[in-house]
Amino acid sequence: MKLNIISETVFDEEKIPFYGNKFLHGNGYFGIRGTMEEYKKENMPAVNMAGIYDKVGDKWRESVNAPNPLFTYIKVDGKAFVLPNIKPFSHEQSLDIKTAIHTRKTVWKTDKGHITVFCERFASMANQHLIGMKYSVSADFDCELEIVTGIDGDVWDINGPHFVKIMPETLENNEKVTGITGEKGICVTVEQSVKTDLETTSFSDDFSVYKKMSICAKAGVEYGFTKIASVCTSCDDFENSDDITTLDYETEKAKHIEKWEKIWDISYIKIDGDEEAELALNYSIYHLNCIAPRNMKNKSIAARGLSGQVYKGAVFWDTEMFMIDYYIHTEPEIARTLIEYRINTLEGAKNKAREYGLDGAYYAWESQEGGFEGCSDYNIVDVFTKRPMRTYFRDKQYHISSAVVYGIVKYIKATEDKSILKDGAMEVIIECAKMYRSLLLKKADSTEYEIYDVVGPDEYHERVNNNAYTNKMAQLTFKTACELIKEFDYEKYKDLYDKFEDSYRNIRVAKPNENGLIEQFDGYFDLEDTKPEILRTRLLDEKEYWGGAYGVASDTQVIKQADVIAMMSIFKDEYTKEQMRANWEYYEPRTEHGSSLSACMYSQVACSIGMPDKEYPFFMKSAKADLVTGGKEWLGLIYIGGTHPASEGGAWIVAVNGFAGISIKDGELICEPNLPKNWRGMHFKLKYRGEIYQIDIEEGRKEITK
Amino acid sequence: MKLNIISETVFDEEKIPFYGNKFLHGNGYFGIRGTMEEYKKENMPAVNMAGIYDKVGDKWRESVNAPNPLFTYIKVDGKAFVLPNIKPFSHEQSLDIKTAIHTRKTVWKTDKGHITVFCERFASMANQHLIGMKYSVSADFDCELEIVTGIDGDVWDINGPHFVKIMPETLENNEKVTGITGEKGICVTVEQSVKTDLETTSFSDDFSVYKKMSICAKAGVEYGFTKIASVCTSCDDFENSDDITTLDYETEKAKHIEKWEKIWDISYIKIDGDEEAELALNYSIYHLNCIAPRNMKNKSIAARGLSGQVYKGAVFWDTEMFMIDYYIHTEPEIARTLIEYRINTLEGAKNKAREYGLDGAYYAWESQEGGFEGCSDYNIVDVFTKRPMRTYFRDKQYHISSAVVYGIVKYIKATEDKSILKDGAMEVIIECAKMYRSLLLKKADSTEYEIYDVVGPDEYHERVNNNAYTNKMAQLTFKTACELIKEFDYEKYKDLYDKFEDSYRNIRVAKPNENGLIEQFDGYFDLEDTKPEILRTRLLDEKEYWGGAYGVASDTQVIKQADVIAMMSIFKDEYTKEQMRANWEYYEPRTEHGSSLSACMYSQVACSIGMPDKEYPFFMKSAKADLVTGGKEWLGLIYIGGTHPASEGGAWIVAVNGFAGISIKDGELICEPNLPKNWRGMHFKLKYRGEIYQIDIEEGRKEITK
Repeated sequence: MKLNIISETVFDEEKIPFYGNKFLHGNGYFGIRGTMEEYKKENMPAVNMAGIYDKVGDKWRESVNAPNPLFTYIKVDGKAFVLPNIKPFSHEQSLDIKTAIHTRKTVWKTDKGHITVFCERFASMANQHLIGMKYSVSADFDCELEIVTGIDGDVWDINGPHFVKIMPETLENNEKVTGITGEKGICVTVEQSVKTDLETTSFSDDFSVYKKMSICAKAGVEYGFTKIASVCTSCDDFENSDDITTLDYETEKAKHIEKWEKIWDISYIKIDGDEEAELALNYSIYHLNCIAPRNMKNKSIAARGLSGQVYKGAVFWDTEMFMIDYYIHTEPEIARTLIEYRINTLEGAKNKAREYGLDGAYYAWESQEGGFEGCSDYNIVDVFTKRPMRTYFRDKQYHISSAVVYGIVKYIKATEDKSILKDGAMEVIIECAKMYRSLLLKKADSTEYEIYDVVGPDEYHERVNNNAYTNKMAQLTFKTACELIKEFDYEKYKDLYDKFEDSYRNIRVAKPNENGLIEQFDGYFDLEDTKPEILRTRLLDEKEYWGGAYGVASDTQVIKQADVIAMMSIFKDEYTKEQMRANWEYYEPRTEHGSSLSACMYSQVACSIGMPDKEYPFFMKSAKADLVTGGKEWLGLIYIGGTHPASEGGAWIVAVNGFAGISIKDGELICEPNLPKNWRGMHFKLKYRGEIYQIDIEEGRKEITK
Repeated sequence: MKLNIISETVFDEEKIPFYGNKFLHGNGYFGIRGTMEEYKKENMPAVNMAGIYDKVGDKWRESVNAPNPLFTYIKVDGKAFVLPNIKPFSHEQSLDIKTAIHTRKTVWKTDKGHITVFCERFASMANQHLIGMKYSVSADFDCELEIVTGIDGDVWDINGPHFVKIMPETLENNEKVTGITGEKGICVTVEQSVKTDLETTSFSDDFSVYKKMSICAKAGVEYGFTKIASVCTSCDDFENSDDITTLDYETEKAKHIEKWEKIWDISYIKIDGDEEAELALNYSIYHLNCIAPRNMKNKSIAARGLSGQVYKGAVFWDTEMFMIDYYIHTEPEIARTLIEYRINTLEGAKNKAREYGLDGAYYAWESQEGGFEGCSDYNIVDVFTKRPMRTYFRDKQYHISSAVVYGIVKYIKATEDKSILKDGAMEVIIECAKMYRSLLLKKADSTEYEIYDVVGPDEYHERVNNNAYTNKMAQLTFKTACELIKEFDYEKYKDLYDKFEDSYRNIRVAKPNENGLIEQFDGYFDLEDTKPEILRTRLLDEKEYWGGAYGVASDTQVIKQADVIAMMSIFKDEYTKEQMRANWEYYEPRTEHGSSLSACMYSQVACSIGMPDKEYPFFMKSAKADLVTGGKEWLGLIYIGGTHPASEGGAWIVAVNGFAGISIKDGELICEPNLPKNWRGMHFKLKYRGEIYQIDIEEGRKEITK
């Protein structure tokens, strides 16, 4: 088994969307879907831009796909040989996760013989504006060969078209397509510089530019070109200072690989005895690296990474709950960027709070640039009536603000970089605490604060009271705010301190009942007690939404994803193992795992309890979220496919905190390993408070060395 | 125009359910639907029992229909002549509202000539167990005539069958059918005594007994019989001491008419100059008299009166909001019975409060005997999926308890019968106030109490916060409780007094905004502003439910029925005419009037403002609710047809309080008439504090005399 190669050797047209995600490559500035060079928009190719958004009419606001500089096709004797139209004789698509180089090799068979296309390409990690591509064709018979490569401005969009103006240009040595977005007039400029020994001509149409090579091809001779393309926008954090016509493909490729080597040096996790897990885990880490906002400002990571416009290219709680941990311990400057994004979007969060009559900061459920709330009141389409359904993700999922606070808490705990507090994180925490304060309700004859009418992590149950997770996270927010006020600025925030302290002490926090169980929200245990398998039999349409007011899960105890278990995964120290086990065993069979965030939370808690049969499958499910099919692709009638970085970040957390047993106690990095049965050892590096530690776990031995 | 006769002279098969309601007759102990004697259950005949309920399996619990002693059909020359199977040559169905006698005359034409059936019948008001019936047949040709009359035990049920055992018996002089209900084993016994000169034979089948008369009929000769039937149950409040075989039809009819004469003496309202209105109004009063629980204990009036099992035969807020006023001022002992029903069902209301974690008494939304809550969590069937939809009528329509209090307040104010307080009404008020106290929520940094997550009168908007009506009625409850505690039992209830006083002072009560408008609930004015006519164009299915989570009205300002206007109709003195007008003009065009309770509230407020063009049509709509077709017969996929006593009670309120301008000021009966343009006068009696007053309003003159 090659521990760096992901590949598919069978071409399956139906899996084109899935391959697009599985073979994603990117550099944080953009992501390139793992599609074939010849694909037009119906097969969803995309150079998906980080943090660039646009809105068309009253459609959903979403991220923008750049004009596509990969676009290349061939004609042999006048006939186009392209996937998926012409079935291949053989086909292989591969990704080397060590070098982040994507390759495809396709052979078509004709009456005359075989035609072979090979292409390798990469999203440069050394210069994040660049794409490198090397393309070659050969036939085992003499033929008229035509190779066309260009920049396809007729881009794939879900809620587009986003470019109100598209300007294809053929320049002296290169080609260029500029698109201008409608909402904000952002320029997205893509250039290509093609190098080849072949003669070329350029041409263009309304959207695109092309370079054509026409060859009287000899049998067995390889013909081709290399291309350096650049992608820039009018709101870049860093400039592309290079003239791409001067750049050499192999040199750029070497720089790119060198950069990835550095990334892998700190992030690779070696697992002794389980190659499948090692590949899956490092594939997850690969994804986290492809989408990290390196060298960027005020950017975070979208819930579907850079795999397209699904979920509107928006940032969810996923970042702070599941991804930031990895960056904190490998490249903490990226974690800081993620937090800076929240600091930068505080004003948006304050506006949202005001919109709902709340105090403080209520972060966007689907955060776009500047904290713009991308989530609408209608997120699902009813399969029966085709009408939009009112959902409460936007207005009632209050736990988002606590996730922001939790991310900051984790960052400071592991880095001791308290400067971030002065740089705005302190204000974020105070404002989030103010928001929760304004949610607190006290019954006329009670001393306890409650929070009504919320949506917890389990979105299938809307508008519930006292969601255990939400209340507990609000309490964490109050506690964090109090601690920081005491440490830094007591005089300034004295009045708030008293309010937060009162809130912290008096908010209702769910206690385990006589069976050790915590009720997910008021009245949850009174709902119909059934299982996801049974609900599945009640579906009238396989795409119908399970939640909302009348979904099959709504009036039952079946939940979408970890909720009480999400809480326990964060507050492990506050529950006994028996309590954690009781809740795990109660909730897991009632969980649909309809969110990719679910499995890794169950796995984390399983690790804390010691449930060898359970930890590993959930870990593998998380790590393989994008390696195998089976992810949820539909929510009502809305396509939600894409990569699952939260699941991948979750897999890293389970591996490092769960299996390797890394934790921080009294400021010290502790290792209490709890490896899966078939694992003989783990070896990896971690950053902690500015130092790099080497962790080596082998049978009977564990070692942390600086 | 005959001012006492309601009739139809065209037979329309499609209107059979409607005629069943329109021609209803009853005596409070039971109601008889205005169906033909020959109808079997598919045409919905019913002797609907007051306060007798049964539940089959997991179907809805509903009132019970007795075996039907009206059942009669004829055969001529071996062929059955029955409606609707054989189309009539002519047909007339009539109701004399003065005598409460129902008649039908049907002529069929055959090749040989004409056959005429005539029947008159009544639900005896003199002995409420009895039904009297006189039936005759003639043909204008010689023929073989067979008349069969019996007790049909194969009753019409919506959620039946309710009789687990049916025992038909033929006795020496009469016939009998006894049905035993499944849930509680209640016996419902129906007997008939048929008198005729003809020869008779008796026979029976599994459910029913029959008496047959076979005649060689001569042309032009009338043949027939009279019948006295009795209906009794094993849980009667009063016994039927008569042996029905000794009773004479004409004597019983005379006693019945005499009793109705007494009723009309106190209740008839004469209108000079508008016969249509006079008939409609007195038809409404007729209905209120047919369904009043005279001589009964612990009974109230179902929302659809005694017209069948729709709405489960249950008692709603309709009684206290719209009906009790009539009885208070005509037969206050009936009003007292209605209140005693609530006293008697206090334990049920306390249980319901406990079920929802509340203190005090939360009355059943659909109250059955003993305060049993007939309302389920699923009251509507989705037309698209055929699945039951979760509704919040049962759990969130908190205003029901305040309606009970309001009924008591109105009763005491008009009768000065404070003995009812000692007899349990005081406890009812205290317990209702305790319930509202336990709903109050205070935000962490506020001094104001709010009520979250309610359904107000407008059921289309579920789970709203601070419904203006609900908060105001809760305040009325606190205020009433405080006043009574102060007057009667301060020492006993001192602590509660303080709490209620605090609640009364600090509950949020909606204030008119700068335009004089009161917002129906938090955020109402932010909803899409549209009209019912527009929503109608958005329907995908004419039977689809407008409310709930995803109905066409849910996210709009379109409301089902008066809500802010309902509040204003009660608290007229607290708003200026300008404010009332502003709200009337704002809300009325946004109201679907999808409830029969809506029109009379709009009419009442219109009277207070002086809107001559508006008062009258809404009044007539209310008064004619059962006279004309057009009432809502479907809620989702559930049949909800039946009579509309609340609408009829509302019409009385508008006539007496609105048009005649009767009110109580400083303990005095005041008359400030405001007659519709075409009315020249009104003449009626009213009871007030034990005395009977004659009200005479004529042009330029008004007079109240004892």
